[in-house]
Amino acid sequence: MSAERPGRVVTNTPRADREVVAALGRLGVATVHEAQQRTGLMAPRLRPIYRPIRAAGTALTVEVPPGDNTMVHVAAEQARPGDLLVVTPTSLCRDGYFGDLLATSMRARGVVGLVIDAGVRDVADLTEMGFPVWAAAVSAQGTVKGTLGNVGTPIVCAGVPVLPGDVVVADDDGVVVVPRLRSSEVLEAARAREGAEAIKRERYAAGELSLDVNDMRTELSALGLREEEWE
Amino acid sequence: MSAERPGRVVTNTPRADREVVAALGRLGVATVHEAQQRTGLMAPRLRPIYRPIRAAGTALTVEVPPGDNTMVHVAAEQARPGDLLVVTPTSLCRDGYFGDLLATSMRARGVVGLVIDAGVRDVADLTEMGFPVWAAAVSAQGTVKGTLGNVGTPIVCAGVPVLPGDVVVADDDGVVVVPRLRSSEVLEAARAREGAEAIKRERYAAGELSLDVNDMRTELSALGLREEEWE
Amino acid sequence: MSAERPGRVVTNTPRADREVVAALGRLGVATVHEAQQRTGLMAPRLRPIYRPIRAAGTALTVEVPPGDNTMVHVAAEQARPGDLLVVTPTSLCRDGYFGDLLATSMRARGVVGLVIDAGVRDVADLTEMGFPVWAAAVSAQGTVKGTLGNVGTPIVCAGVPVLPGDVVVADDDGVVVVPRLRSSEVLEAARAREGAEAIKRERYAAGELSLDVNDMRTELSALGLREEEWE
Amino acid sequence: MSAERPGRVVTNTPRADREVVAALGRLGVATVHEAQQRTGLMAPRLRPIYRPIRAAGTALTVEVPPGDNTMVHVAAEQARPGDLLVVTPTSLCRDGYFGDLLATSMRARGVVGLVIDAGVRDVADLTEMGFPVWAAAVSAQGTVKGTLGNVGTPIVCAGVPVLPGDVVVADDDGVVVVPRLRSSEVLEAARAREGAEAIKRERYAAGELSLDVNDMRTELSALGLREEEWE
Amino acid sequence: MSAERPGRVVTNTPRADREVVAALGRLGVATVHEAQQRTGLMAPRLRPIYRPIRAAGTALTVEVPPGDNTMVHVAAEQARPGDLLVVTPTSLCRDGYFGDLLATSMRARGVVGLVIDAGVRDVADLTEMGFPVWAAAVSAQGTVKGTLGNVGTPIVCAGVPVLPGDVVVADDDGVVVVPRLRSSEVLEAARAREGAEAIKRERYAAGELSLDVNDMRTELSALGLREEEWE
Amino acid sequence: MSAERPGRVVTNTPRADREVVAALGRLGVATVHEAQQRTGLMAPRLRPIYRPIRAAGTALTVEVPPGDNTMVHVAAEQARPGDLLVVTPTSLCRDGYFGDLLATSMRARGVVGLVIDAGVRDVADLTEMGFPVWAAAVSAQGTVKGTLGNVGTPIVCAGVPVLPGDVVVADDDGVVVVPRLRSSEVLEAARAREGAEAIKRERYAAGELSLDVNDMRTELSALGLREEEWE
Repeated sequence: MSAERPGRVVTNTPRADREVVAALGRLGVATVHEAQQRTGLMAPRLRPIYRPIRAAGTALTVEVPPGDNTMVHVAAEQARPGDLLVVTPTSLCRDGYFGDLLATSMRARGVVGLVIDAGVRDVADLTEMGFPVWAAAVSAQGTVKGTLGNVGTPIVCAGVPVLPGDVVVADDDGVVVVPRLRSSEVLEAARAREGAEAIKRERYAAGELSLDVNDMRTELSALGLREEEWE
Repeated sequence: MSAERPGRVVTNTPRADREVVAALGRLGVATVHEAQQRTGLMAPRLRPIYRPIRAAGTALTVEVPPGDNTMVHVAAEQARPGDLLVVTPTSLCRDGYFGDLLATSMRARGVVGLVIDAGVRDVADLTEMGFPVWAAAVSAQGTVKGTLGNVGTPIVCAGVPVLPGDVVVADDDGVVVVPRLRSSEVLEAARAREGAEAIKRERYAAGELSLDVNDMRTELSALGLREEEWE
Repeated sequence: MSAERPGRVVTNTPRADREVVAALGRLGVATVHEAQQRTGLMAPRLRPIYRPIRAAGTALTVEVPPGDNTMVHVAAEQARPGDLLVVTPTSLCRDGYFGDLLATSMRARGVVGLVIDAGVRDVADLTEMGFPVWAAAVSAQGTVKGTLGNVGTPIVCAGVPVLPGDVVVADDDGVVVVPRLRSSEVLEAARAREGAEAIKRERYAAGELSLDVNDMRTELSALGLREEEWE
Repeated sequence: MSAERPGRVVTNTPRADREVVAALGRLGVATVHEAQQRTGLMAPRLRPIYRPIRAAGTALTVEVPPGDNTMVHVAAEQARPGDLLVVTPTSLCRDGYFGDLLATSMRARGVVGLVIDAGVRDVADLTEMGFPVWAAAVSAQGTVKGTLGNVGTPIVCAGVPVLPGDVVVADDDGVVVVPRLRSSEVLEAARAREGAEAIKRERYAAGELSLDVNDMRTELSALGLREEEWE
Repeated sequence: MSAERPGRVVTNTPRADREVVAALGRLGVATVHEAQQRTGLMAPRLRPIYRPIRAAGTALTVEVPPGDNTMVHVAAEQARPGDLLVVTPTSLCRDGYFGDLLATSMRARGVVGLVIDAGVRDVADLTEMGFPVWAAAVSAQGTVKGTLGNVGTPIVCAGVPVLPGDVVVADDDGVVVVPRLRSSEVLEAARAREGAEAIKRERYAAGELSLDVNDMRTELSALGLREEEWE
Repeated sequence: MSAERPGRVVTNTPRADREVVAALGRLGVATVHEAQQRTGLMAPRLRPIYRPIRAAGTALTVEVPPGDNTMVHVAAEQARPGDLLVVTPTSLCRDGYFGDLLATSMRARGVVGLVIDAGVRDVADLTEMGFPVWAAAVSAQGTVKGTLGNVGTPIVCAGVPVLPGDVVVADDDGVVVVPRLRSSEVLEAARAREGAEAIKRERYAAGELSLDVNDMRTELSALGLREEEWE
């Protein structure tokens, strides 16, 4: 029978700067997403397996066939401390590609978490280990080993293009990807945004209306907003 | 370009009685829903962002375009203590209309929670604040400001008609709406029901069968239920 | 009007051995599922209502019409200590068939949990009681009593055939069914598997690659996997 | 056992003017929806069972329990020529409430079509009869008769409030509801819109850009749109 | 790497009587489903790839891993004239397992159609060939060959248990399975039902109400149905 | 209020060779997808609005905010004969971005079809015009004009990265994208594949088994496939 899908492993892929990764991680998904003009957010079907949750790392990309996790095993060898596994199936699949055994192995290699547009299992163990996972499903359905895929290549995961070494920031709100080459610039924008938000938060807490804090009244009138009394 | 959707803000809308609201809130969604003959329950796609959770308030209704939260800002000015925001998009949308900044502002205005047939973000912060939210999605995807909608008008949210000032009761089981003008009557029915349930609970705990407690055996025979031995 | 669906209650159905049930329960869903060659796993739409969670019992099967829980009441009379209720609707339904009253009754009869391809309610109470439930939905929508179904008959629940008395093992990963007549044999296979996994876990934790632990390198080469440098 | 859901039939409900209904029907869903400021459109899960398709009538509203079509039979007696059945379940259900027998009966009573947020069956027969149906599902799963609902009361169907006698316009694009009391006014607006569209269509067909026909360039610049060359 | 899923081919499985199959096929899905007390209907996610459509045959069962159609090729050798392929994946998959090449092969072997709880492709060719297919998806995504499954074993497809040789009846309304051993008895019941429906159809066409034809008025009163005038 | 999303129009983007596009179009989606090693297939949620259907063109990419079709109007100016519009929303949206007016304009500009991961309307008119569309939904819900997006930039549509000028091939089976720079090479592979398939088709039609035509028997034995008689 035939190998319809040849497999590739790209080695020595670059990684984003670890301090930039850590700083973006502290700012969180919503702020980082805004700071890069609302790009890079994965679809909300990826949900954390426990909460609260938080991770940031450099993308170790993996593309897998449906129901086959061979390439996740292959990826372990390419992992470096600070990497975050990003796994996407070549077509819709909800099987459990990853469980406590692979998490043990990945943690030993320095991997800081997993983002997967498919299923995982052993979630009680993963929760106890504190190994952060964002997945499209929880399913005990195991996978086979027999068909290749890719490690370290450009992929699309949950609607977002990911290059190896890009920054992945994930928390209770979801998962956002920052291109490695833009990561410093996005960090700067995110910090500026965070400062502005802190000021707003204080004014809102003191009872000021966002209509005033954001100077919205003039434009609302221009758009034709009208008030009327309840009858 | 054209303002296809004019916007309206209805002011001084009535509110249900606060004591009635509080009493209905203590009874919980399942009991209140039964007490008003199983009407007013929002679709189960609205899920709490944390658990356990509980809120009851008077509906401050907001109708928003997809991907635009302008009218949530407008609503803040109309909020009164005890209100609960009820937000519905004019068409399917899962973006994050609401986060910790708006929650801070709403809490300062006395708003007791949010029900939204769309997405929210900053759910870790909202959880820490204890600001109760029932939403159709969690998504960091931000919204723009540029198109109008309505505040204080009759809406349909997750399949249920809501008038401004109606009672909204929400807990781990979902969200139910009690029309303001029927709220006292529903409260009375809900209290009666609660009493009946307490008695049943005791009998069940003591091992009595619900077939007997509810006198079901005669009708089951009439319907033709038959027993047979396993072979 | 007509009784399109006659109802049957099969009594004195057999049950799997209680020690085997308990032992399978300790091994957990993923291990048991693997041990019986990846059969018997219910669809992942069945989710636990709280976490962590765990139960194992003998199936007390119930087939219900949409929106009608009469047969759950009927089932209570057939329950024996160690049973686990498995409820399937005859067509898609997400209503709340089961709440704290029925849980109280079932617990009094020795029932150890519920698996249902439909909805439940009173989940805050069920959580507080520690009554384990795996359901397709949470919904306060109540059901009526007026149409029959079956108790103690063979059913299909979430894609899996279940005979009365089969072993049901459920935890954070989902629900798996072990046929009563194969339960001892599956237990043996599961124990063997668990031992092998413990050894692997240690080797992974020590940093060994799964490629080596599982001897995958030769076959990967044969399949045509190739490495290349990042450019 | 208990009748949790009492049933009501409201008789002699008003109907919108038949000429207005016919005229709105000729204009089609998209135009009518725009003409009433984009309100009243049912969720797109309601799909026609054949295409092309078209109907317009006065709403004969029916609210049914899940899996029970008793009230559709009751509705037949209230039908008047020109009515269009609008059926909504009290909770999610995809069973086949309606088939060729009921269509034969309804047609004999002058009913011009069916809109249902649930399932239908016998779709080959319905297609051959040319009986227009918009439904959320096709399913041969039959329903029982044993629980009441309502006929001739206000309902919400696929997210839209419908009063008995409102105008329902449906075609390949979906289903829109025009409140009876606004129907003449909406007809006028729809006709105006149609005229404007005919002019645009000609200009577009001649190769003019919509940017020019709709005078969009100034505002686009103001919003900050910028052009750049491909590199 | 390991063969987690051993494969089996059961040969010389029995087939239901061909005349019974043909007769059931003429009666259609809705009638047959009713005649066997509303059992055996596959979930409505299985849709015909063209309409009108109709087929009836004896089940040639196939269980396939996700994304791998090896066993469909294996099944061809077991096919006998009058068989209808019934294919179910071991976990959720929407890939295109079947296209015009396999249809050509199957037709040459006398296979009369395909029911699959997964995807198919080349639907334009299949439509032109008039090869009837009911599938959960249309997808050009190809499958690999490398993992085994089963042919000729008992399976569950779209929620329904199927034994090899059972009768499969499918049309525009969906797919129903009649157990081989009950097929004559079901045929008899279906014929009786069809006769009764023909009489009803005539009475309905003549304007009689189903309330009268089915003698529903007394029971409706007993259930508490009440009429009221519109105000 | 603020322009959170700046807009860009990239002009003079390259296009794939028109003869290559036409040739790939004749080969169809399934063959082209196989020929480029099963990459580039859009998710099957994109469905044709009529059947049979077929188009091939060079991608004119458009990224739109939810509920706002401004950039589709902007795109018309960039269109060249042979282009095929590919429209993706920045977050989930099912509104009707495109109808008969825009189709008239696009056709006048030489555009050969539309692929959109959102909704369209006026589908009866589009069908009559023979303007081919693949969409995620049909909805009469109109969009506004007020927020920018991008034209002529790299996008991800239904899971597939698309560069301006890439080849888009679409038919009854779905939509596949061929990168412009690989299009000649893919065409060659697709033609080779087509030839091989023609030979297989003949052999299958003559009754040969695919097990033999594809030489599968040895490997199946190696994988452990075993036959057994039905008991």
